[in-house]
Amino acid sequence: MRAIDHNTITDAAIEQMSTTPDPRLKQIMESLVRHLHSFAREVDLTPDEWLKGITFLTEVGQKCTPFRQEFILLSDTLGFSSLINQLHDRRATETGNTKTSLLGPFYRQDSPELPLGECIVKTPRQQVVIYGKVTDVNGKGIPKASVEVWQTDEDGAYDLQKESQAPGAVPEMDMRGRFRTDANGNYYLRTVVPLGYPIPMDGPVGALVTAQKRHGFRPSHIHFLIGAPGYRELVTALYTRGDEHLESDTVFGVTDSLVMDVKQDDPNSPMKGYPSIRYDFALALAAKDGSGRVGADPSQITKVGA
Amino acid sequence: MRAIDHNTITDAAIEQMSTTPDPRLKQIMESLVRHLHSFAREVDLTPDEWLKGITFLTEVGQKCTPFRQEFILLSDTLGFSSLINQLHDRRATETGNTKTSLLGPFYRQDSPELPLGECIVKTPRQQVVIYGKVTDVNGKGIPKASVEVWQTDEDGAYDLQKESQAPGAVPEMDMRGRFRTDANGNYYLRTVVPLGYPIPMDGPVGALVTAQKRHGFRPSHIHFLIGAPGYRELVTALYTRGDEHLESDTVFGVTDSLVMDVKQDDPNSPMKGYPSIRYDFALALAAKDGSGRVGADPSQITKVGA
Repeated sequence: MRAIDHNTITDAAIEQMSTTPDPRLKQIMESLVRHLHSFAREVDLTPDEWLKGITFLTEVGQKCTPFRQEFILLSDTLGFSSLINQLHDRRATETGNTKTSLLGPFYRQDSPELPLGECIVKTPRQQVVIYGKVTDVNGKGIPKASVEVWQTDEDGAYDLQKESQAPGAVPEMDMRGRFRTDANGNYYLRTVVPLGYPIPMDGPVGALVTAQKRHGFRPSHIHFLIGAPGYRELVTALYTRGDEHLESDTVFGVTDSLVMDVKQDDPNSPMKGYPSIRYDFALALAAKDGSGRVGADPSQITKVGA
Repeated sequence: MRAIDHNTITDAAIEQMSTTPDPRLKQIMESLVRHLHSFAREVDLTPDEWLKGITFLTEVGQKCTPFRQEFILLSDTLGFSSLINQLHDRRATETGNTKTSLLGPFYRQDSPELPLGECIVKTPRQQVVIYGKVTDVNGKGIPKASVEVWQTDEDGAYDLQKESQAPGAVPEMDMRGRFRTDANGNYYLRTVVPLGYPIPMDGPVGALVTAQKRHGFRPSHIHFLIGAPGYRELVTALYTRGDEHLESDTVFGVTDSLVMDVKQDDPNSPMKGYPSIRYDFALALAAKDGSGRVGADPSQITKVGA
């Protein structure tokens, strides 16, 4: 008979899980149990605090709907999603590839296919051009690469957040599109500069972020999902230089190499008469470890509340 | 601008939470973030695995009802609840107190007050006597201590699990009662020897336990909640020696000092003609860190499925 105490309980739990047939599940659960137990010992967690944690996690789960994923939001605000992206980038078999950033909850699988140069926004106020090249890590252009792009409008709202549509209706596609690079790997399209916005603050995760006195904002950004046969799919986002929340993104998506500049008069822009943004994306060769879409499951698409 | 990578993301997250006004919340979240990030780095968690985790946690949250607390069950099966109990015991200001064990999901606040010697089971097959003393850590009896007891019947079911009642009806009280020790701290009551039972296996936690090839059983046990003014409330359970799952309790509640023996002919038993169990409970003086009821919130009461 074992005399369980606050130290031996950890080995007792891991020993009981040692029968797990799947070696990866076994490894993950062992490590998780060790780290969770170390956390509780380190802070000397009390029963009252434990119960608050149970209540919080239950509320997070119950806040989830087909249009809102509060657990992904929790993962995002703890820097955990960003960490998963960094680990994914590190597993690339080549260096020099563009960094991953959060896919976020507003991705839609069936965005419209558009010809190069088209504008993805139905009612733009001030159009800008985004252009550049999709290449391998050696700078060689990749023809016919798929470039999916989505973003908020100039007021910080995604199409999924528009309140004009009827209740329960599938929101009309806007501020998103899918392009193909040309024979040299070039892409170009028109859009608007998006506005930053707060994460959903009306649930348990918003309450936690408020209790931490964090502002809850994401800086202005444009999402990209880029793929080509034989290459690692790239989920990333470009962040607008000058945004006041660039240094304090609530979900830790910003990294220096993903900040974009809007230029008023770039002689290389393929479409004249608009401000322009140039960004080249470098794809690593395909790896065997899955898509890298942190949050990409279509069932995870979130609709932010008011 | 920060160049976030798989190491710097942790400090970035903690730095953003450093504005938390409540020092305890700040401490807990910092430690949690450090340990969760260490876990992800240690196992090199992939985006696909992360999404499986998100889906699992969402299912756990959505399985919770006013009669079922799947997150407590998850905590229990990871040894986390037991650890919280051990940490609680360690914070006692005195040594020699009886160890805490899991309160579990079947506690009910309003169990009937009964006179000493009464039987808590409405239709017993084979009655046994439980008796002993509630004392301080020096063995001095505590008069008028409250002794709440609850357990399964001889077939392994709590009153809350009985299927005979009408749907939605509040299940009738059975196999539970509340007693007061006499002037010398003695208690005695009649009950039956309970049977072990599996945790609820029809939810996501049951699926995890199955994937780990664990049997999912708890050994036979009787719950106690013992209190007296000026003393630390004691939540514990006594486990039946000889139960086949004593060494492999799915929720890690068993510890050597909490195993009870059923004696056929104990000359000290206060009620003759029945097998008997003697157990003395020692309470430490009250501390300032809350109740120690891991799972005791009445809203957490769980009703196990089929």
